Amino acid sequence: MTWTRGTSVSEVLDKARRAKAVAPELAVLPTPAKDAVLRAAAEALEQRADDILTANQRDLAAGRDAGLAESVLDRLALDDERIAGIAGGLRQVAGLPDPVGEVLTGRTLPNGIKMRQVRVPLGVMGMVYEARPNVTVDAFGLALKSGNAALLRGSKTARHSNEALVTVLQDTLAAHDLPREAVQLLPSESHDSVRELITARGLVDVVIPRGGARLIDAVVTGATVPTIETGTGNCHFYIDRDADLDQAITMLLNGKTRRVSVCNATETVLLDEALADHDKLAVIEALQGAGVQVHGDVDTHAAFGAEVVPATEADFAEEYLSMDIASAVVDGVEGAIAHVTRYSSGHTEAIASQSADALRRFADGVDAAAVMLNASTAFTDGEQYGMGAEIGISTQKLHARGPMALPELTTTKWILEGSGQVR
Amino acid sequence: MTWTRGTSVSEVLDKARRAKAVAPELAVLPTPAKDAVLRAAAEALEQRADDILTANQRDLAAGRDAGLAESVLDRLALDDERIAGIAGGLRQVAGLPDPVGEVLTGRTLPNGIKMRQVRVPLGVMGMVYEARPNVTVDAFGLALKSGNAALLRGSKTARHSNEALVTVLQDTLAAHDLPREAVQLLPSESHDSVRELITARGLVDVVIPRGGARLIDAVVTGATVPTIETGTGNCHFYIDRDADLDQAITMLLNGKTRRVSVCNATETVLLDEALADHDKLAVIEALQGAGVQVHGDVDTHAAFGAEVVPATEADFAEEYLSMDIASAVVDGVEGAIAHVTRYSSGHTEAIASQSADALRRFADGVDAAAVMLNASTAFTDGEQYGMGAEIGISTQKLHARGPMALPELTTTKWILEGSGQVR
Repeated sequence: MTWTRGTSVSEVLDKARRAKAVAPELAVLPTPAKDAVLRAAAEALEQRADDILTANQRDLAAGRDAGLAESVLDRLALDDERIAGIAGGLRQVAGLPDPVGEVLTGRTLPNGIKMRQVRVPLGVMGMVYEARPNVTVDAFGLALKSGNAALLRGSKTARHSNEALVTVLQDTLAAHDLPREAVQLLPSESHDSVRELITARGLVDVVIPRGGARLIDAVVTGATVPTIETGTGNCHFYIDRDADLDQAITMLLNGKTRRVSVCNATETVLLDEALADHDKLAVIEALQGAGVQVHGDVDTHAAFGAEVVPATEADFAEEYLSMDIASAVVDGVEGAIAHVTRYSSGHTEAIASQSADALRRFADGVDAAAVMLNASTAFTDGEQYGMGAEIGISTQKLHARGPMALPELTTTKWILEGSGQVR
Repeated sequence: MTWTRGTSVSEVLDKARRAKAVAPELAVLPTPAKDAVLRAAAEALEQRADDILTANQRDLAAGRDAGLAESVLDRLALDDERIAGIAGGLRQVAGLPDPVGEVLTGRTLPNGIKMRQVRVPLGVMGMVYEARPNVTVDAFGLALKSGNAALLRGSKTARHSNEALVTVLQDTLAAHDLPREAVQLLPSESHDSVRELITARGLVDVVIPRGGARLIDAVVTGATVPTIETGTGNCHFYIDRDADLDQAITMLLNGKTRRVSVCNATETVLLDEALADHDKLAVIEALQGAGVQVHGDVDTHAAFGAEVVPATEADFAEEYLSMDIASAVVDGVEGAIAHVTRYSSGHTEAIASQSADALRRFADGVDAAAVMLNASTAFTDGEQYGMGAEIGISTQKLHARGPMALPELTTTKWILEGSGQVR
């Protein structure tokens, strides 16, 4: 199926209008009804795995023909185990507390008005993401549980997989007498559908981009609807003069090498210049011994016996998402804060130190969603935080900062109960 | 002083950079230091009232020459009493709890990491507003107390007043060894400075527009930095078949006529068609008796004996901010919800009813920052809510909804304290 430019544009707005129309029904769905659908959808995904895998094979074949990188094909690929994992995610969301209806605060005003602030769904939530079919189902699950309608703009590369998945989800909704429009897939053939989605003011309440830095930047700067910036993690690990060096190296290697493609991976190591030369060298050699290529100023590193690849500004400013790391020598905790302030993407910044002063100063001085004091950068994660599920990691300051789960997909409504009061 | 286009543009970015540079210092200011400056600034405004009033006279003279409406000149005008009110606002903010450093939640993870979510300032806050000099001081006070640097883009009409006010504020900061850059006035000669401010990604953390619908729309749709939409209040008051009619009329008149120029004023009355004709007539006649011009469908209203001015779509879609109201007959609470859903700006929606069912249905079914059950729309207000101060009323769903005060000018930071943990 192909869309002309015109069709595609009107299809997005048409689907957005349908989403807005069903949002009030979703907003007041009782928790057991939502949980039943989520569990039934998990069941249906497993039962209809063959359809999904057939569709996925078509995407994979097209992807191979188009010469996509193995890493992209790997993210795109589904098998029975991955489908079971996706279904397990829905069951997990079904088991989480329902944020809708939670009363956050309230009081009785002097005039007798009873006032309460209640969590309500955002309404219509758009997602723009890359070729990970699991995001399609995750987004549906989190949106439904938080009472929102989902408009999903996945990658063209995953089109058939996404269509098969959304068909299963919509069939499950219909079987439970709920509107199929609770989850809708938007056309992915061109960038037009993204543009339409992110400018659909009055129809779409939030758009969350999830993917690489370029995708996120395009969505956030092009949008006129509210967006939540996610994911770019240019994370630093600072080793202070007062660090336990063995521990520091263990945390650094964990943050760098555990999984290199994730946003919480460590991308730069900062070495306190007051560290002994042999300690600085030990850090660099530990990285290199683990197969990590270290980029830095050649002379500065040679001064303590280390050999590194020459670094440019981009090495410090951008994520590698690979077995590479940038390294710089800084003047103590203040030098580390200055470096982080210049290059941080506001995701996760870590310090290794046994000095309470240095830890406090670092925690106050860096401006990021997460600050790790003697812990690996890898801990910035919804599951690690105990949130149970995660739709992304916000690196912006408004609305949500850090891992986002169900409460972050809601807004609030003030309800004032009076008995005829006037001012 | 006039600015060429080029100068104006670079001045905004230069001031934004200076604001960002001092933000870390402001972020860690102890509460007593902030409160002392706020109280000293209040004192200084009163002591230097003559300078301020002289500057204000220049703006008023220029405004009269330019033929500005009396209502605009009235908002622009300062006198000793208004300056005392502005100073009192600063003292009130000094007395409010400091939101910075508040721990919102926290836990110890199974691996022993101690995790806490702490309120921190947003950083650099921009305001774009119209010719109300009091906003200049209010914004400074709320920004400083919440640890933020303020970039203020007021109206050209209030330029001399704003310059005089900001000079007093900056002198007070300097006398307390704090950076003058905690509050800076941006050039107001052209729209260029607004454009520069709202696209200064990486320098400005939030821009809050405050003023008419056009100003707000221009800021929100043109911005690439995060914004908070404020203020447009197309508020409805629905009178249900089960209303106490006398009470309903009292609340309606209060919401409509208390102050017509404010965003929480009632702009449309919705009459349940099940009301008796004489009750419908009583509502319309009460409005007309209070000097309110009622706009509506002539035939529908004639059917119960009321004479109204013919209404167009714009009467229902826009705020009057005057002694006018739109009126429509709707089919019960569901009809009211449908009308509100179509025309609401998401600010405040009210119902008068003695039916618990109708109240519950209305509270669930309308999507707005505030829902008033048997109370006047005029209660949507930071002071009424007990917040003590207000920088605006958010009509968007992300970050803040309804009156915004100090906590809404903060974000959070997760701090994870470990002892060498890895994943």
